[in-house]
Amino acid sequence: MECLGYGKVHRALIVIDETCDKLYGDQFRAYFERYGVQTRICTLSGGETSKTLDFTLRVVDAMAGFGMMRRSQPLLCVGGGVVMDAAGFAASIYRRGIPYVRIPTTLMGIVDASVGLKTGVSYGGGKNRLGSYHAPKCVLIDTSFLETLPERELCSGAAEILKLALILEPELLIELEENTPHILLDKFRSLAGHRLIRNSIRIMIQQLSGNFQERDLNRLVDFGHSFSPYIEMRRVGEILHGEAVALDMAICIAIALRRNLLDEPFAQRVLQLFRNLNLPTINESFSAEELFGALEDVVLHRDGLQRVPLPRKDGPGLFANNIELLDVAWAVDYLRNG
Amino acid sequence: MECLGYGKVHRALIVIDETCDKLYGDQFRAYFERYGVQTRICTLSGGETSKTLDFTLRVVDAMAGFGMMRRSQPLLCVGGGVVMDAAGFAASIYRRGIPYVRIPTTLMGIVDASVGLKTGVSYGGGKNRLGSYHAPKCVLIDTSFLETLPERELCSGAAEILKLALILEPELLIELEENTPHILLDKFRSLAGHRLIRNSIRIMIQQLSGNFQERDLNRLVDFGHSFSPYIEMRRVGEILHGEAVALDMAICIAIALRRNLLDEPFAQRVLQLFRNLNLPTINESFSAEELFGALEDVVLHRDGLQRVPLPRKDGPGLFANNIELLDVAWAVDYLRNG
Repeated sequence: MECLGYGKVHRALIVIDETCDKLYGDQFRAYFERYGVQTRICTLSGGETSKTLDFTLRVVDAMAGFGMMRRSQPLLCVGGGVVMDAAGFAASIYRRGIPYVRIPTTLMGIVDASVGLKTGVSYGGGKNRLGSYHAPKCVLIDTSFLETLPERELCSGAAEILKLALILEPELLIELEENTPHILLDKFRSLAGHRLIRNSIRIMIQQLSGNFQERDLNRLVDFGHSFSPYIEMRRVGEILHGEAVALDMAICIAIALRRNLLDEPFAQRVLQLFRNLNLPTINESFSAEELFGALEDVVLHRDGLQRVPLPRKDGPGLFANNIELLDVAWAVDYLRNG
Repeated sequence: MECLGYGKVHRALIVIDETCDKLYGDQFRAYFERYGVQTRICTLSGGETSKTLDFTLRVVDAMAGFGMMRRSQPLLCVGGGVVMDAAGFAASIYRRGIPYVRIPTTLMGIVDASVGLKTGVSYGGGKNRLGSYHAPKCVLIDTSFLETLPERELCSGAAEILKLALILEPELLIELEENTPHILLDKFRSLAGHRLIRNSIRIMIQQLSGNFQERDLNRLVDFGHSFSPYIEMRRVGEILHGEAVALDMAICIAIALRRNLLDEPFAQRVLQLFRNLNLPTINESFSAEELFGALEDVVLHRDGLQRVPLPRKDGPGLFANNIELLDVAWAVDYLRNG
């Protein structure tokens, strides 16, 4: 087997999400047999509740059991964001780092988790509390996996495209609006869907390059990732990652409205796009106090400042360091009552 | 507090070996109080049996409990090799890496564990099976800690100096011979002791620079680290790291003798130095078959080749890739019966 930029591989361990294994396992097995690659397949549940150190250690145990060479036998990670992150973390700490290949099978995996160097698992109630920066040897993207992806998962992934559109590229926002809901119906497999995916990956890479290890903590791609880690960890397994990101973005849009960074028609237009993408804008479970409290850990994570990306109508967003309880309360009220 | 190359620190978490805490804890506390640094001290047992993921996670829990900022509040690691490695691993994975400072208090910590980027813990019976490369912000070396170091620990650390001398620098070997056993009596606190430490660190850094992440697996500094991981893991808590390294080096010296890389007088001269440093040359518990079997994991770790560094009489060592059971059996017999 020849991997882009990797060279010949004769032996590999495959970590695959159990749903993927049911859907594509036979094809994978046949492929590797055809090319004479000796493999062992480690099937794990790849839901968000599985994003734990235990997942990572099960991959480590599988690597040890397989007797993997340190450099010439890669770990192939097949699945969604959780498999990318938690198996990637295993690759980064086993023998201080072994090569791995990302094969994302969800939209979230394709446009978000497989771009960049980040790996990680949640720990002690903290989202991605443990992790590393570990570059994959290559990322193989095949959108035909999306054919079997449930619509809710597809919408969750679309939230990350929406994120990039809102915080960085108004043109992408228009592109997304014009092609919704068609992209959901054809599962991003049309030309328009492919173009959206390509543009998202391009924007992500542009934003990350030069800052792959987050030396600069002012990251516009963290839009939607300030309140969402708390939301997600409190409702792990109930609210998908992209849905939590959507809830976070909606709060930030309302705060941006309050601060005149954008106007009401723009806010309403965008919130309509949320609805068209089946993304939530408000969850009744969380009080403004609770959401504001979530910024405490964000401040630790962003080294003393909130650095909350807020969108602006006609250009890239900016960073707010002075969000108060009143802002969040106003936002929650706006999203509840319009 | 001002750390070399780090800048002002107002708040820090200290991980300290429990023996160090008994001996120096009050001084540390007084120091930080004097300089107005807010600290929390996390005391852990730093013996080799503690070099586990559990140690690392306890440090992670302490960081989370302390509410540590991601960049501006370092982790200070005070202790021997285990604290350097296992707490350093915690620093490398917490929030994908936070800054840490190494303050080694043992000779092993000073000349070996605190040089370079490696962190790690043992896992599933494998020595340093999990770990990372994570550069400390700075390393503070104070040899006055050695005053309270038990002689056996001192000898264990000296094994790493002996390693560098044998595999890389004949001059260092002479220096070590000429100053043994005085350096043990004055605990490396004489000019000669300081010079030996400085030279060892210099040689280590020369060897590592350009290869900090072990892209090249042919590493002469791995001398003494082929059979020793197995020996150490089988007798963890009984045989110190440096003692296992010594046992490994003795086997390699005998193999080198068998292969005419060095002569009998040189071998005997060197083995006498082992004895003068109170370092073992043979352990009756391990059969030649068992030791040879240990190379299996070494071959995985060194990506398909043995790459066992063997010493030569008058110059840097070389790498053997064809060590056979017969070589090991001959070596064991030579070391047992002379």
